[in-house]
Amino acid sequence: MFKECLYHSPDLKWAYAYDCDTFHLRLRTKRDDVEEAVAVTGDKYDWDNHAMDIPMEKIAADSLFDYWEAVIKPEFHRFSYGFRVRSGDEMLWLIETGVFEEMPTPAGGYFEVPFIHAIDLFDAPEWAKSAVFYQIMPDRFANGDSSIDPEGIRPWGETPGGEDHFGGDLQGILDHLSHLTDLGVTAIYLTPLFTAPSNHKYDTVDYKQIDPQFGDAALLKQLVKSCHELGIRVVLDAVFNHTSEQFPPFQDVLKHGESSKYKDWFHLNGFPVEVKDGTANYATFGFYGNMPKLNTANPEVKQYLLEVAVHWIREADIDGWRLDVANEIDHSFWHDFRTAVKTEKADVFIIGEVWGNALNWLHGDEFDSSMNYPFTNKVTEFFAASDYAASDFADQINSLLMRYPQQTNEALFNLLSSHDIPRAATRLGGNKDRLKLAVVFMMASMGIPCIYYGDEIGLDGGDDPDCRKCMEWDTDKQDRELFDFYQLLIALRKEHAALRDGRFRFLHADNANGTLLFERLNTRQHFTIWINNTEEAVTLSHPMKADDWHDALTGEKIVLAEDKLEIELPPLDFRIIYRNI
Amino acid sequence: MFKECLYHSPDLKWAYAYDCDTFHLRLRTKRDDVEEAVAVTGDKYDWDNHAMDIPMEKIAADSLFDYWEAVIKPEFHRFSYGFRVRSGDEMLWLIETGVFEEMPTPAGGYFEVPFIHAIDLFDAPEWAKSAVFYQIMPDRFANGDSSIDPEGIRPWGETPGGEDHFGGDLQGILDHLSHLTDLGVTAIYLTPLFTAPSNHKYDTVDYKQIDPQFGDAALLKQLVKSCHELGIRVVLDAVFNHTSEQFPPFQDVLKHGESSKYKDWFHLNGFPVEVKDGTANYATFGFYGNMPKLNTANPEVKQYLLEVAVHWIREADIDGWRLDVANEIDHSFWHDFRTAVKTEKADVFIIGEVWGNALNWLHGDEFDSSMNYPFTNKVTEFFAASDYAASDFADQINSLLMRYPQQTNEALFNLLSSHDIPRAATRLGGNKDRLKLAVVFMMASMGIPCIYYGDEIGLDGGDDPDCRKCMEWDTDKQDRELFDFYQLLIALRKEHAALRDGRFRFLHADNANGTLLFERLNTRQHFTIWINNTEEAVTLSHPMKADDWHDALTGEKIVLAEDKLEIELPPLDFRIIYRNI
Repeated sequence: MFKECLYHSPDLKWAYAYDCDTFHLRLRTKRDDVEEAVAVTGDKYDWDNHAMDIPMEKIAADSLFDYWEAVIKPEFHRFSYGFRVRSGDEMLWLIETGVFEEMPTPAGGYFEVPFIHAIDLFDAPEWAKSAVFYQIMPDRFANGDSSIDPEGIRPWGETPGGEDHFGGDLQGILDHLSHLTDLGVTAIYLTPLFTAPSNHKYDTVDYKQIDPQFGDAALLKQLVKSCHELGIRVVLDAVFNHTSEQFPPFQDVLKHGESSKYKDWFHLNGFPVEVKDGTANYATFGFYGNMPKLNTANPEVKQYLLEVAVHWIREADIDGWRLDVANEIDHSFWHDFRTAVKTEKADVFIIGEVWGNALNWLHGDEFDSSMNYPFTNKVTEFFAASDYAASDFADQINSLLMRYPQQTNEALFNLLSSHDIPRAATRLGGNKDRLKLAVVFMMASMGIPCIYYGDEIGLDGGDDPDCRKCMEWDTDKQDRELFDFYQLLIALRKEHAALRDGRFRFLHADNANGTLLFERLNTRQHFTIWINNTEEAVTLSHPMKADDWHDALTGEKIVLAEDKLEIELPPLDFRIIYRNI
Repeated sequence: MFKECLYHSPDLKWAYAYDCDTFHLRLRTKRDDVEEAVAVTGDKYDWDNHAMDIPMEKIAADSLFDYWEAVIKPEFHRFSYGFRVRSGDEMLWLIETGVFEEMPTPAGGYFEVPFIHAIDLFDAPEWAKSAVFYQIMPDRFANGDSSIDPEGIRPWGETPGGEDHFGGDLQGILDHLSHLTDLGVTAIYLTPLFTAPSNHKYDTVDYKQIDPQFGDAALLKQLVKSCHELGIRVVLDAVFNHTSEQFPPFQDVLKHGESSKYKDWFHLNGFPVEVKDGTANYATFGFYGNMPKLNTANPEVKQYLLEVAVHWIREADIDGWRLDVANEIDHSFWHDFRTAVKTEKADVFIIGEVWGNALNWLHGDEFDSSMNYPFTNKVTEFFAASDYAASDFADQINSLLMRYPQQTNEALFNLLSSHDIPRAATRLGGNKDRLKLAVVFMMASMGIPCIYYGDEIGLDGGDDPDCRKCMEWDTDKQDRELFDFYQLLIALRKEHAALRDGRFRFLHADNANGTLLFERLNTRQHFTIWINNTEEAVTLSHPMKADDWHDALTGEKIVLAEDKLEIELPPLDFRIIYRNI
């Protein structure tokens, strides 16, 4: 075995409390190098009377590694541990002080779980973990009140330019809530609503006012109330990393320079504050001089923004915040943000925008979730291609899952499209069968699915601004068959907890073509999802013992072929087969 | 090269801000597998104009791995990065999404440092990082006021039993401050002072009162004031994990059971609250029924304890807290503890008692330091033996150093003895030369040295209670030569910043015997520490260019022998050779 390839660290995703009584340990080994792994545990205050070996299960593999997991329920909410791995007759022990060829004495050097505290758990709101989200960009969803249209709006449905306004507003959303209830979603995430010059409003000028082109606070309150009556939660978008250059404190800095009382609200590097030869002498979002970065470590700024965050919960009863450019703001701010909003409303849901690995913000004391673009990318890449080995895809999805603790994976914000990337329909080459496979994969995956407005009726679009087209409300122009498909999958996910909290494992991933089989399993149900991401018909089979399998979408009973399930799949097709336990 | 042995994670000790402008990246590779490592960096908002390759230096090796470091000062306080490693003609790239044989495009998948925020830095107080500490167990240090002796104390100097009291007190410490100033220490850490039945006071009954056998609050205040006038800081010991069973709220729980208003102050599993057949039906420290564990997540308990912590800073102007059994208390508590005490006094020093890897509490928002017992163990094991290869010792010390970021290593609480382990003199077999080598190693290491009372005058002792003997005040019975040696080394460490903040590297560590050479280097001075941990005389040499080397203890000029320093070392001896830069 390769000693250098054994990896464990007593923190983060490697050692974490899943709930108040349950601890998960993970160990990484070189792929196919270890036959058996065991967690060797004891209590440091009385090892002999509490020593226990806990077998580990191989829960995932990626291109380089196997990942092993032990689930432990320690009697005294604490334990010490190491790992024993075996290949043939060879054994190795990994403890905190190193790798050994004989079992180290319990005298010291083992890893420790000093005490499991409920207060330190990563614990996203239950409603959010069960939700199906729908993302709306208000300017592009529906125009419900033409009296508040800004000047010079473009006709609804025309190809959008970067600076165009189309007149969508809160009344438009209110008018179309039945579309959302028909579809079956249980939560909406609205891109920013507060006063800002752009159509997307990611350049806030006034955090305390709804942009007049969308409506006002009373209308937002009414929208949230109506949504709640329909069982739909509402999450708004907070842009706290930066503001518009028109944000009054920044204007004050431009005007009064060093004597401005707002000079410590930003990261200024000199006076006068200016953009010279294209370079700002202050920190900005990206290199955009018109979006000055806020100094969120300044207690005044922090207090101002936390008041904003709490204000909209109190005023409009919103259910969560999606946090723009969240990873460029300090951790101290987010820690206090969480305390402030959760104190106001305990089950507020906090989603950070982090495009890569978001673990640093998901320790339990900052965000509940993160926009899962790495998932988006892998899923759309795989389902867009016919020559993509399913085994490579499985490796990559496993690698993503192993970035986080299990309960964090259950709370990640999975999406196929958003206002920041080309739509799934377009990335999947306009092939509806491929889009459906991607939707099936998302709806059957760990993590909270989110549908970007219009994806469900066939909207396509490339890079921004093309991915921000107006919603199509003419039902003749909507793809209603696709809508029905989304509706069916959403209903299935909502009905069966196993699709949300069940364990996720690949059972088969072909290394020569795009055929894939994975399961979701909890104590009550077992789902198997069969996917043919090739342009040929295939027959897949997998050993199965029970004989009470049914098709989850048609209800059809599935007959076993000699202790195995054998499923015929047309090109680019799928089956969802399940049984009750 | 071994792909599976490349390790980096964008967090903790692998990627951290060293100060507001400087970021450190570390990469781990299989030992002797990689010839060259480079950090490939860019700005994700404009890669082409800000791409930069930063060479990495091999800063340490242990038995399995090499560790590489890049020091980066990013212009915009943010950057993205990956690593390129080379062996011969073979090249590999490691980025967040995996290991590649060709350079991945900057389009995505690189690791990210989104923005460096000063507020998130790990930043221990400067005074503490420069301090030399002295640990005192008040009952055993000096009896300055026999009028407050508890009944039945044992005569000073007799062999201590576990339950014995000897009458040491605060006045005794006050009376002997000249011993501390002679020695040169700049801070003292006192084991608990608050009212408790035991001699060690780790079983608190009243957090708000100095135990009458030690004195009172006024006397503590006077002690701290006198220390401050002598340039000595004072750190007290807080036992917040558990209390004595005599702690009034626990007595209330024993008496009133489920109707006690303190029932949520502890972790109770049933009523009546009791110890039955040796097993408590409530959480305890270890398995000691007389030390019930506090429920520090209960806001009432938290408020009570934080008030205690702030009270003694305000009342007596103490300079820090050492936290007993710190890792068994919730992180949320320590986060709020830090905020509370640092708000009261910004440069309070917080030392957690964590016997193993303490990184989980050293992210910058909980503790400043941790009792470094892993260091104690490695140092005393090595210097106790003659057949211990210096290369193994160097591997182990490097492995410990690689557990933490650099600034955390600079703040760790290094010790050779304490009230909880046999004294160094005893662990080193009563050999004074070996003890001196261990002292040299500690005084020249990264981390804050702490001397346990009496070590400096030759006190020995095995396991508790033998390691808690009374201080010897008869100068004829003190080892004054050893005292002078400590004094000399303390003065040296205090005089030269390079011994505190300079880089630490092993230059030579023999794999056949105990000869060792290491350096401390900052921008102003270069120290080389030559150690012969064998019972034979040896001559060590190391290539050196400059010719202005001096012996740091004698001032003697060292003459180069043909571009190398060549040092003769008697058995179990050392030299400290330095030059100004």
